[in-house]
Amino acid sequence: MSAGEVGRLIGVGTGPGDPELLTVKAVRALGEADVVAYFAKAGRNGNGRAVVEGLLKPDLVELPLYYPVTTEIDKDAEAYKRQITDFYNASAEAVAVHLEAGRTVAVLSEGDPLFYGSYMHLHVRLAGRFPVEVIPGITAMSGCWSLAGLPLVQGDDVLSVLPGTMGEGELQRRLADTEAAVIMKVGRNLPKIRRALAAAGRLENAVYVERGTMKNAAMVPLGEKPDDEAPYFSLVLVPGWKDRPGREGRLREERG
Amino acid sequence: MSAGEVGRLIGVGTGPGDPELLTVKAVRALGEADVVAYFAKAGRNGNGRAVVEGLLKPDLVELPLYYPVTTEIDKDAEAYKRQITDFYNASAEAVAVHLEAGRTVAVLSEGDPLFYGSYMHLHVRLAGRFPVEVIPGITAMSGCWSLAGLPLVQGDDVLSVLPGTMGEGELQRRLADTEAAVIMKVGRNLPKIRRALAAAGRLENAVYVERGTMKNAAMVPLGEKPDDEAPYFSLVLVPGWKDRPGREGRLREERG
Ligand SMILES: C[S@@+](CC[C@H](N)C(=O)[O-])C[C@H]1O[C@@H](n2cnc3c(N)ncnc32)[C@H](O)[C@@H]1O
Ligand SMILES: C[S@@+](CC[C@H](N)C(=O)[O-])C[C@H]1O[C@@H](n2cnc3c(N)ncnc32)[C@H](O)[C@@H]1O
Repeated sequence: MSAGEVGRLIGVGTGPGDPELLTVKAVRALGEADVVAYFAKAGRNGNGRAVVEGLLKPDLVELPLYYPVTTEIDKDAEAYKRQITDFYNASAEAVAVHLEAGRTVAVLSEGDPLFYGSYMHLHVRLAGRFPVEVIPGITAMSGCWSLAGLPLVQGDDVLSVLPGTMGEGELQRRLADTEAAVIMKVGRNLPKIRRALAAAGRLENAVYVERGTMKNAAMVPLGEKPDDEAPYFSLVLVPGWKDRPGREGRLREERG
Repeated sequence: MSAGEVGRLIGVGTGPGDPELLTVKAVRALGEADVVAYFAKAGRNGNGRAVVEGLLKPDLVELPLYYPVTTEIDKDAEAYKRQITDFYNASAEAVAVHLEAGRTVAVLSEGDPLFYGSYMHLHVRLAGRFPVEVIPGITAMSGCWSLAGLPLVQGDDVLSVLPGTMGEGELQRRLADTEAAVIMKVGRNLPKIRRALAAAGRLENAVYVERGTMKNAAMVPLGEKPDDEAPYFSLVLVPGWKDRPGREGRLREERG
C-alpha cells in the first residue's frame, strides 16, 4: 500500500460452518487482510471468527463489533431501532478509521455476505466512500441441502426462501404456492412453522437441519422431530423436483 | 482403497466461473479423485471442466457425458423425454462402472450441485447404491450479486428464485408478490422477463448480469440494457431490503 491511499473493504463469506467450505479466494483475502472485523454478541466471538482461526496474519488487528444488549427492549420499538442504527453507524465509523489509514479490512460474514448478512449494514454505509469487494460464501441453505443429499430444485421449479419470523397465515400461503422452500430463522418459530407446513400439505417432505456442516450437525425429517427445540443455526428444507426418478420409486414402495 | 470396496461418488460444486470461488474442500476432493465426470454439449468441454484445469491428478480418467443432440425434437414431446431419460440412465451406468471398480468419481457441477444442477440426475440414480458426498458450490446468483455489490435480502424479506422459462402472467404475479427475486435461465426469455418486471413494477431496480465472475463478465441495470441479447450464463437480480440506508439516501437525492 502506498502512502495516502485508502484501504479496501472486503466482505468475506465464511460459509455455513465447516472451515473447508471457505472459498480459495476467501482464504487468500483473509491471509492478506490487515484488520479483521466481525459482529458478535457481547462476550462471544461469533461463529465466523472460529471458522477462520489459523488463516489470519499473526500481527493482524481484530475489531469485534459487539451488539448492544437489547433484551430489555421490544424489537419493534423506536428505541430499539434507534439503538441498533446508532450501533451500525458507529461500527461503520470504526471500520472507516482503518480504511482511512490505508488498511485492508476483511469483514467476516457467516454464509454469504449479501444474503441476510449483518455485513450488509457496513456495506451500504461504506461502499460509496471506499473501494469495496464482496467475496461470496456458501449459504447456510446450500450447506444444509448438500449435507442432507437432498436435491432441492430442478427444471422449472420455483424456490421460495422464507424467514420463519413471518406470520403463520402468510407462511402457509407461500408454502402452498411454491415447488420448493427454505425456511430460515427457525429457532423459537418452529411450532408455528410446523403448523404452517402441515396446513399447506408440505410437512411430509420437510427436512429439519441444525448446525449444518458444523461438528455437531444434526438433521431429521421434521415430521419425526419429537420436540420443538431449535438452536439459532437451524433451517427447514422443502424439496421440489416432484417427478424425480427416486421420488417416484419411493412413492411406489410406500404404496406397496 | 482396499480390494473389493466400491468407490465414492462426489458431486462437486465448481461455482459460478471464477476458479478462485471453488471451496477448499472441492479443491481437495478434485485432487484426490480417480475419475472426473461432467455433462457437456457434444464437441465442447463445459464450463465446469475449464474451471478445474490444473487441479486434477495427472493420471486421472476423464468421463465426459455428452448430451444427445436434440435440436430436431420438441422439448415437451414424449420422444425427447424418453431420449433424455435414456441418456441419464446410461450416464449413471457409465459412472457406476467406475464406482464398482473402487474408483472415486468426482462429478463437476456448475454453481451448487443440488440447485438446478444436472448432477442431480446422477445423484438420484446412484445415491442408494454407492456412498455419496455432495460438496456445495457458490451459486451463480451469489456470484452475481457479490460482483454487483448488491445487498439482496435482509431481515424478514422473502426471496423468490424464478426460472425465466415460466409463463409471463405467472412470472408477473410472483414478481409482484415478493421482496426480492432472482430470475434464472434468462437467454431467449429476456423480452418476456422484461415485460413481466415492468408490469409488476419491478423493472426499475432489476440488474442484469451475464457470465458473472467469469473473465468476460458484464452487468447493467436491466432498464438500461439496449438489446435483448442474453447468453446462457445470465440472470436478473431484483434486490429487497426496501428501507436500507443507502436506498433512502438515493431516493432523497433523486427527488431533490
Ligand atoms: C442472519 S441469517 C444469515 C444467513 C447467511 N448469511 C447465509 O448466507 O446463509 C441466519 C440464519 O441462517 C441459518 N443458518 C446459518 N447457518 C446455519 C447452519 N450452519 N445450519 C443451519 N442453519 C443455519 C439459520 O436459519 C439462521 O437463523
Ligand atoms: C441449470 S442452471 C444451474 C445453476 C447452478 N447449479 C447454480 O448453483 O447456480 C443454469 C443457469 O444458471 C445461471 N448461471 C450460471 N452461471 C452463471 C453466471 N456465471 N452468470 C450468470 N448466470 C449464471 C443462468 O441463469 C443459467 O441459465
